Amino acid sequence: MKRLETDLSADIWTLPSFPVVLVTDGRNIMTAGAFHFYSFDPPSLVVGIMPDKYTHELIDALGEFGVNIPRADQIGVARMCGSVSGREVTDKYERAGITPFVGEAIESCLIKECPLNIECRVVHKSEHPGTHTWFVGEIKAVHVADDYKPAEALMFWGKEYRRVGEFLERA
Amino acid sequence: MKRLETDLSADIWTLPSFPVVLVTDGRNIMTAGAFHFYSFDPPSLVVGIMPDKYTHELIDALGEFGVNIPRADQIGVARMCGSVSGREVTDKYERAGITPFVGEAIESCLIKECPLNIECRVVHKSEHPGTHTWFVGEIKAVHVADDYKPAEALMFWGKEYRRVGEFLERA
Repeated sequence: MKRLETDLSADIWTLPSFPVVLVTDGRNIMTAGAFHFYSFDPPSLVVGIMPDKYTHELIDALGEFGVNIPRADQIGVARMCGSVSGREVTDKYERAGITPFVGEAIESCLIKECPLNIECRVVHKSEHPGTHTWFVGEIKAVHVADDYKPAEALMFWGKEYRRVGEFLERA
Repeated sequence: MKRLETDLSADIWTLPSFPVVLVTDGRNIMTAGAFHFYSFDPPSLVVGIMPDKYTHELIDALGEFGVNIPRADQIGVARMCGSVSGREVTDKYERAGITPFVGEAIESCLIKECPLNIECRVVHKSEHPGTHTWFVGEIKAVHVADDYKPAEALMFWGKEYRRVGEFLERA
């Protein structure tokens, strides 16, 4: 049996899990679940950031951002970087015990301990109203660890951190 | 050790998994991995569709779409609906052995056997160039099965179908 829902915003939280990313800008880090690819050509990604976040201000000012994919065992970093604002903690790298490195194509830092780091220049910003601003970033450089496995990444949605799920079939 | 990648489009396929959705329009169905929420208020979703797809034509013509969340055991439906065009198979419901029902707020059909069905009216269409057009749909109605569990959903990326991953921690 199905019921017709009335709280449509709450239903969004009942979706399955999405990858968690650590969005970096300047020396700041923010944990984000609002992330996807945008286009394969030109290769680009999209991140959704609420306008009151410090990261929103930084992306607007710098016109660039880094996307860092954490492993599931880096859940502590994701929790810390998602729970405090960079307006209060000036060095989340130090607080989380992780190492910044400056990008090849952007001047912002990325996270050395994350197995995948993607450098993006902002090429578009969604103007359609909503709770999030969606920034499209064209990929300018990618750093991949030799032992990177997408299946070891960290997932999140509906207040639950999860692993990437069991493999079923090749497409 | 990390290497600096050169094939930036290919890197997109190394991201972790994303939920698979069945996008419905009129009597057509298309499997899509390019899906996320867009805004909590107004509650809205976004789907990315390549311009040559029949579903792209239908969304443009009808100004609406349904998002149907399949369970992992409905992988056969996802495979079928993602492998043939609605221009060739006029009734994918019959071909997949599933049941259409007409929405409360949209005239397109949704899939009875999927545990979550979301009816959307198109309110925005991304104009920024890329391989996909991203349609923002405001949620107008949601149907939820009594036994719906987000953890039973089907995930996909990088040519691999997966389950939703193991629970780690509450946020």
